[in-house]
Amino acid sequence: MLLRYFYDEKLAQASYLVGCEATGEAIIIDPARNIEQYLTAAEQQGMNIIAAAETHIHADFVSGTCELAVRTGATAYLSDEGDQDWKYQFLHKLNHVLVKDGDTFKIGGITFEVIHTPGHTPEHISFIVTDGGATQPIGIFTGDFVFVGDIGRPDLLEKAAGIQNTADKGAKQMFHSLQRFLKLPDFVQVWPAHGAGSACGKALGAVPSTTVGYEKRANWAFNYNNEAEFVKELLSDQPEPPEYFAEMKRVNKEGPALLSELSAIKRYSPSKKTIENWINDNVPIIDVRSFHEFSRGHIPGTINIPYTLSFTNWAGWFLDYNQPFYVIADETEINGVIHDLHSIGIDTLKGYMHSDILERLEQDGLELQKYEQISSEELKNKMKNDEVYVIDVRNESEYKQGAIPGSRHIMLGTLRDRVHEIPTDKPVVTTCQAGGRAAIATSILQAHGVSNVIHYRGGYNNWEKQHASTKC
Amino acid sequence: MLLRYFYDEKLAQASYLVGCEATGEAIIIDPARNIEQYLTAAEQQGMNIIAAAETHIHADFVSGTCELAVRTGATAYLSDEGDQDWKYQFLHKLNHVLVKDGDTFKIGGITFEVIHTPGHTPEHISFIVTDGGATQPIGIFTGDFVFVGDIGRPDLLEKAAGIQNTADKGAKQMFHSLQRFLKLPDFVQVWPAHGAGSACGKALGAVPSTTVGYEKRANWAFNYNNEAEFVKELLSDQPEPPEYFAEMKRVNKEGPALLSELSAIKRYSPSKKTIENWINDNVPIIDVRSFHEFSRGHIPGTINIPYTLSFTNWAGWFLDYNQPFYVIADETEINGVIHDLHSIGIDTLKGYMHSDILERLEQDGLELQKYEQISSEELKNKMKNDEVYVIDVRNESEYKQGAIPGSRHIMLGTLRDRVHEIPTDKPVVTTCQAGGRAAIATSILQAHGVSNVIHYRGGYNNWEKQHASTKC
Amino acid sequence: MLLRYFYDEKLAQASYLVGCEATGEAIIIDPARNIEQYLTAAEQQGMNIIAAAETHIHADFVSGTCELAVRTGATAYLSDEGDQDWKYQFLHKLNHVLVKDGDTFKIGGITFEVIHTPGHTPEHISFIVTDGGATQPIGIFTGDFVFVGDIGRPDLLEKAAGIQNTADKGAKQMFHSLQRFLKLPDFVQVWPAHGAGSACGKALGAVPSTTVGYEKRANWAFNYNNEAEFVKELLSDQPEPPEYFAEMKRVNKEGPALLSELSAIKRYSPSKKTIENWINDNVPIIDVRSFHEFSRGHIPGTINIPYTLSFTNWAGWFLDYNQPFYVIADETEINGVIHDLHSIGIDTLKGYMHSDILERLEQDGLELQKYEQISSEELKNKMKNDEVYVIDVRNESEYKQGAIPGSRHIMLGTLRDRVHEIPTDKPVVTTCQAGGRAAIATSILQAHGVSNVIHYRGGYNNWEKQHASTKC
Amino acid sequence: MLLRYFYDEKLAQASYLVGCEATGEAIIIDPARNIEQYLTAAEQQGMNIIAAAETHIHADFVSGTCELAVRTGATAYLSDEGDQDWKYQFLHKLNHVLVKDGDTFKIGGITFEVIHTPGHTPEHISFIVTDGGATQPIGIFTGDFVFVGDIGRPDLLEKAAGIQNTADKGAKQMFHSLQRFLKLPDFVQVWPAHGAGSACGKALGAVPSTTVGYEKRANWAFNYNNEAEFVKELLSDQPEPPEYFAEMKRVNKEGPALLSELSAIKRYSPSKKTIENWINDNVPIIDVRSFHEFSRGHIPGTINIPYTLSFTNWAGWFLDYNQPFYVIADETEINGVIHDLHSIGIDTLKGYMHSDILERLEQDGLELQKYEQISSEELKNKMKNDEVYVIDVRNESEYKQGAIPGSRHIMLGTLRDRVHEIPTDKPVVTTCQAGGRAAIATSILQAHGVSNVIHYRGGYNNWEKQHASTKC
Repeated sequence: MLLRYFYDEKLAQASYLVGCEATGEAIIIDPARNIEQYLTAAEQQGMNIIAAAETHIHADFVSGTCELAVRTGATAYLSDEGDQDWKYQFLHKLNHVLVKDGDTFKIGGITFEVIHTPGHTPEHISFIVTDGGATQPIGIFTGDFVFVGDIGRPDLLEKAAGIQNTADKGAKQMFHSLQRFLKLPDFVQVWPAHGAGSACGKALGAVPSTTVGYEKRANWAFNYNNEAEFVKELLSDQPEPPEYFAEMKRVNKEGPALLSELSAIKRYSPSKKTIENWINDNVPIIDVRSFHEFSRGHIPGTINIPYTLSFTNWAGWFLDYNQPFYVIADETEINGVIHDLHSIGIDTLKGYMHSDILERLEQDGLELQKYEQISSEELKNKMKNDEVYVIDVRNESEYKQGAIPGSRHIMLGTLRDRVHEIPTDKPVVTTCQAGGRAAIATSILQAHGVSNVIHYRGGYNNWEKQHASTKC
Repeated sequence: MLLRYFYDEKLAQASYLVGCEATGEAIIIDPARNIEQYLTAAEQQGMNIIAAAETHIHADFVSGTCELAVRTGATAYLSDEGDQDWKYQFLHKLNHVLVKDGDTFKIGGITFEVIHTPGHTPEHISFIVTDGGATQPIGIFTGDFVFVGDIGRPDLLEKAAGIQNTADKGAKQMFHSLQRFLKLPDFVQVWPAHGAGSACGKALGAVPSTTVGYEKRANWAFNYNNEAEFVKELLSDQPEPPEYFAEMKRVNKEGPALLSELSAIKRYSPSKKTIENWINDNVPIIDVRSFHEFSRGHIPGTINIPYTLSFTNWAGWFLDYNQPFYVIADETEINGVIHDLHSIGIDTLKGYMHSDILERLEQDGLELQKYEQISSEELKNKMKNDEVYVIDVRNESEYKQGAIPGSRHIMLGTLRDRVHEIPTDKPVVTTCQAGGRAAIATSILQAHGVSNVIHYRGGYNNWEKQHASTKC
Repeated sequence: MLLRYFYDEKLAQASYLVGCEATGEAIIIDPARNIEQYLTAAEQQGMNIIAAAETHIHADFVSGTCELAVRTGATAYLSDEGDQDWKYQFLHKLNHVLVKDGDTFKIGGITFEVIHTPGHTPEHISFIVTDGGATQPIGIFTGDFVFVGDIGRPDLLEKAAGIQNTADKGAKQMFHSLQRFLKLPDFVQVWPAHGAGSACGKALGAVPSTTVGYEKRANWAFNYNNEAEFVKELLSDQPEPPEYFAEMKRVNKEGPALLSELSAIKRYSPSKKTIENWINDNVPIIDVRSFHEFSRGHIPGTINIPYTLSFTNWAGWFLDYNQPFYVIADETEINGVIHDLHSIGIDTLKGYMHSDILERLEQDGLELQKYEQISSEELKNKMKNDEVYVIDVRNESEYKQGAIPGSRHIMLGTLRDRVHEIPTDKPVVTTCQAGGRAAIATSILQAHGVSNVIHYRGGYNNWEKQHASTKC
Repeated sequence: MLLRYFYDEKLAQASYLVGCEATGEAIIIDPARNIEQYLTAAEQQGMNIIAAAETHIHADFVSGTCELAVRTGATAYLSDEGDQDWKYQFLHKLNHVLVKDGDTFKIGGITFEVIHTPGHTPEHISFIVTDGGATQPIGIFTGDFVFVGDIGRPDLLEKAAGIQNTADKGAKQMFHSLQRFLKLPDFVQVWPAHGAGSACGKALGAVPSTTVGYEKRANWAFNYNNEAEFVKELLSDQPEPPEYFAEMKRVNKEGPALLSELSAIKRYSPSKKTIENWINDNVPIIDVRSFHEFSRGHIPGTINIPYTLSFTNWAGWFLDYNQPFYVIADETEINGVIHDLHSIGIDTLKGYMHSDILERLEQDGLELQKYEQISSEELKNKMKNDEVYVIDVRNESEYKQGAIPGSRHIMLGTLRDRVHEIPTDKPVVTTCQAGGRAAIATSILQAHGVSNVIHYRGGYNNWEKQHASTKC
């Protein structure tokens, strides 16, 4: 048996190739939309991808099952559990097998046994894998059921899409699914669909895989014998899910567009006049440069989503799935940006510009927008004199644990809709934990007409240090 | 004044960026469809591309004027000479200025004077350039009028598209246009649209630019004072123009598709069954590997157009502009292949496969097609015994200058339509000058059911050497 | 805790980064010489590499511990077990800690417990890892002790370097070390230093990691309770170790050169005359192109080691560690080739040539050497008539399992030294399992003056098929 | 005849490949040290580089003649003019032909005629080229004799190396050399060794080549009939030559190191402690990031030479040719940086670091150094109140044409040696034309202990605009 692990750092998403060396046949578990990686790995190993399997309808990225089926001829193994709300609607487009609890199928000599493990979602299944000739299972693909040190959250859709009463029900199902997990032998490996940083859980570890026995001992979820207490704990302090999750669920149920159906994305080098027309027509422009560079000068009205590990997350919050837009990026980043937008189904990118054009536009007379930074000391002074408003854009749980006194909390993802709540008679200072989110917030405020904005780059990290040092 | 030279080796096509350093404004002369190169150069130089100009409606590549106009906002300067058959039909889509003989326009401080230089085509114009402050012209952009050591051929459309009586008329116009060229000062530089290897002339030199004075002395075209003799010489021994030239003329007149309107092109890794379906459905597959590799095993029915300098030429001959097709290529070549297909307007590439899949397909039971090579000695023996047919696929002019005795001439570009002329009761040996074209021919014959084909890799080059050595 | 897995396909070698997220400190377990991968991973994760650890003195690749120590300041944790023959001799060059069975050290909050696990080598240690705050170990780095489905072989040095009586002794130590492994809890993950294809074992699985419990049940080594039987089984049918292993052991004990102490490697484009001088002076030239291309024409006397997954293996067999040499490669492969040569300590590469020069050299009059292929049918006929000698260059164990009747066995690695055994009064046909090794053999025979060599590309795979089909 | 043009933007240096298509032989004129470009071009064109020629001993870049001779076997054609100070001293290392005025040599069918054209240097020669079969020359390689719109300066060595009385003598020789140029036919092309931006002249145009006739009419140098006036004009207002020019002259006379003799350059990721040791030991570190990034935080004592078009120039000013040093760069820039350092013979780069490590070092407690920017308005106010010193680091000629009132001039190249002249009782503001050079100056002042430095990013460009706008 051959096992290959694929990890998308930005989505904190894991997928797997499992191949039978005897027959040269392989399956991809929970494929991402970027299937190039699987094609390359399979060709390197002399493997033929004959199947793809999903543990559930994903909410945080576009599934690559369709792409794989079309571009390799693979058969899709998909869950037939869950009620009518949880049925795949694009099955006529591809070879597929619907599977239920207790079903088994084989890839070459390797056996996959399906178990229904609802909780994260109602139709969620896991795959227990037994190598050819072995009498004991070698591992289990748990999807968003059991992670390393955590379990899947059941509240995503209620929070992201407003589907009522699903969180509590899911939490109870999870409690029962975990009982089945406990019955597996200790030595069985656990291969989950997410790693540290995923919004599908709250405490995922950064070790790629784990074992049944270790999780029994180390995973918080197995500390609870009482269902009600478990449910309460599971639902508490989950981070705000990105708004785009609801959209993803729909896309993965209905079937995403094939990448080969999308238009090629090309570079633009517009004149000052064209840029001015775009500004007037409210054509969205996303500037992915670092906030250092962005703060020095950007096209008025552009949103700054720096191309860091949290790019897809914030792109998912702020980009409209139906509206064409442009990106400004450094030359070396643009391919990654396009890839990452596609990974969460944002297929409306119309073109991109190299950041080099900003200097030229400025020479041609376009007035670039800028903003200033503030130091901890200055901020302290200005707050003392009541000269500024401070907006903290962190998650609620972070804000609760400690914040700059006098600051006001508006979580970054909701800022756009709540700009009107912010008074503009004094300069507005944005802050977060380490400066990154506050920079995005600054660009959003500027784009929504709040012209007097200052960025507190230090964030609560620095504020605390200042405080701490005065204490010692 | 800033001058930058761009050269596409495969098209033997030259284009130019001329910029005014004082104002930062630039124009592209005869842009190719791949405008990335101009955007990059302009951004590096801090230049703003505000214009594009065409010397004429090109027949051998897709013009990039539309792309530039849309993606930079540039104004197009286009010929208003020639009759109704030679009018641009997409002018409503872009900012443009139609120019006639004697018109001038400025890019920053640089003056461009239009002169009408028909011959290659009726609407052909050239641009005489005078730098800001200078009293004398520095150079002339001649397009397909005067090349280094040659002049533009007037017979392309008659030969490629069957438009009657245009060659002779064009040749006469060329004679008169050359008289105007003679009046320019000797020191003026000549910047043509093509270099050595272009099918737009017959004897182009491999020096990028030349001067009026040098051409007066060294270009064969200025040896003729008599119009009739000149016309006769000009029209003789021109190489067969690729069939796609007729298509290009139409595309460039009507306006090509924007690259951003085309679908993204993705990699496929089809199963044996899918491949068999494609074969049955006559889906064209082009294999661009070297003929060494191709001869060792290829999917039955695929055409081999190796990715060498003559790739675009033969792709233009053999690919249908309306039928979707796939390409098989090594990983490192595929981007170049896509680029080159687009450069001549073949926009129907549906996807590509890495050549790695061939081994897998063979393992899965697909029977790959192969062919053998023959040595000069063996060929001689077999011809002596009348055991083979030999098909020479070179240009007519090459065949006339010397060929293997007993060989039959069918120019490669026409082979597909003349396969039925070839008897199949004996093995067929393909030959050309150095082996490349014969390899393409071999694949075409195989794809059209001639199963017993042998490739004479040595070609006439080797045949001659053998002969030569026996003589000495 | 953060765990990252690094795998070198050509060496089948695994290394690991383990980091403490709380302190940002990381350690590399069994680093390869290419430390770029660790620097990049660490910088991406915001980690500081403060340590490197080795399970043992590696015999199959150059350790990266020195490189890491010098280029990051990391402290080396190295075994103090084993007798005087197994002591590191370069410790004065770097910060280090010598560790023995029972010792523990910490990287941030993570504890590493050392256990002595001799068998593969006398000083071999393993590291049991316990995450900060956990009460149970999460995994064990086993180096070349326990693999997935196999265990480390104790006979490498006896076979590769002729060090007497070490194999048997090591096998017994291994038996006892395995008893300690059995006492670990089932759920503990096992992270070995090699995967499938490594010459450090004979049956390694292609799953990256395993668990103690699974190995107890699935690994052949735990089927033996009797030491003598175990030893016998362990020592049987191990593949021939590459000759370079002995050299590696020395290098890793004495300390390898730093990559920054090596000369930069540049491209050459020698004239025909220079090449002829090199040939006369016996300057070795290695041609890494595919055997298809090589067979069509190569510089006389060059050895063909195609750049495939087994490149490092055969380079290790055939390249002299002290003699400067040149490589001929395609442009896209050369960086990989240099990297792979360095990975096994071949530091004498003097320069490289692009394969493009072969055509030019031929044009300039250099006579390229070629060889022919033979089909299964032809081979059968020629053997029937006793017209050829057939040399089978596979491993002894493969040859024993079945071979072409009448073929003679000379294992590829030993061919150079046994060329004189091959009679040259008839053509020599080379064969192996699937054609690859026989191609290398063909080039070796040619380079050693056996001019009449034919390559049987099909190998025993094809021979068997032919046979099989006649049977059915 | 085949002509290929190579241009190094940073050195503003042109070199050429001239090939004879009939024989496949080629020569490189004035090769740069990066000979990869010539090898690639030659192999693409099927050409064999059999020769290299130099117009003179270059002062601004390392000649590639040695590299070419060693790595291709090419014969060097070098000047035998000039006195004993101007003789090549490495001729024994390579095949060579010394040439004098009136000599001719052939590359295939192409004739090169040598004319002695002293002025820029005493031994300077030019090559008049006549194509095979032609009766008239096609062009002249002028080296640093005649440029597009300018001529070579004769004062480099006097200024850069302090060799007395060479400037005036050279200027007179130039006057006479120009008379010979005037006798060439108008239509002859002129191919110089430098383009716009080179420090080898003062008014070079950005058109790659020109003609004899055009230069007669447009080049300022031909306006002077009087030798004395000509000499005066030629020697006036030449820019300060970089200090490294003297070093280059020596290197190119004595023979540069081969690139394959240099050590490979590797990446480092040092710990905070190592960095602190380097700081204490005065190990130079060059930070090539943009000044935006540098100003936000850099290792104390590092010099900032941003990786822009003027990188080689300032590297040549500030790097010691004998002292090992490190570079901090973004990942995408490092190869270019190494290449560019080698291009001017700085062979002592010991290793590099990715800029990512700065964040980690800061986390580990290293206090990064920063500096602030000042706006035009603030600067005006502070100067009014006499609160700052302003240091203008432009060239003398720029300063003379207009400067901020009250600013003091210290040309950037000399700043290091004159730091002691700057009083430190008030903050020091650095300024230049557009902000770039002032940023380098800021880092130099900080590295030399001037802690209170402010960067005036706007420079004289912005100062003027401010002024201008108040006038209108």
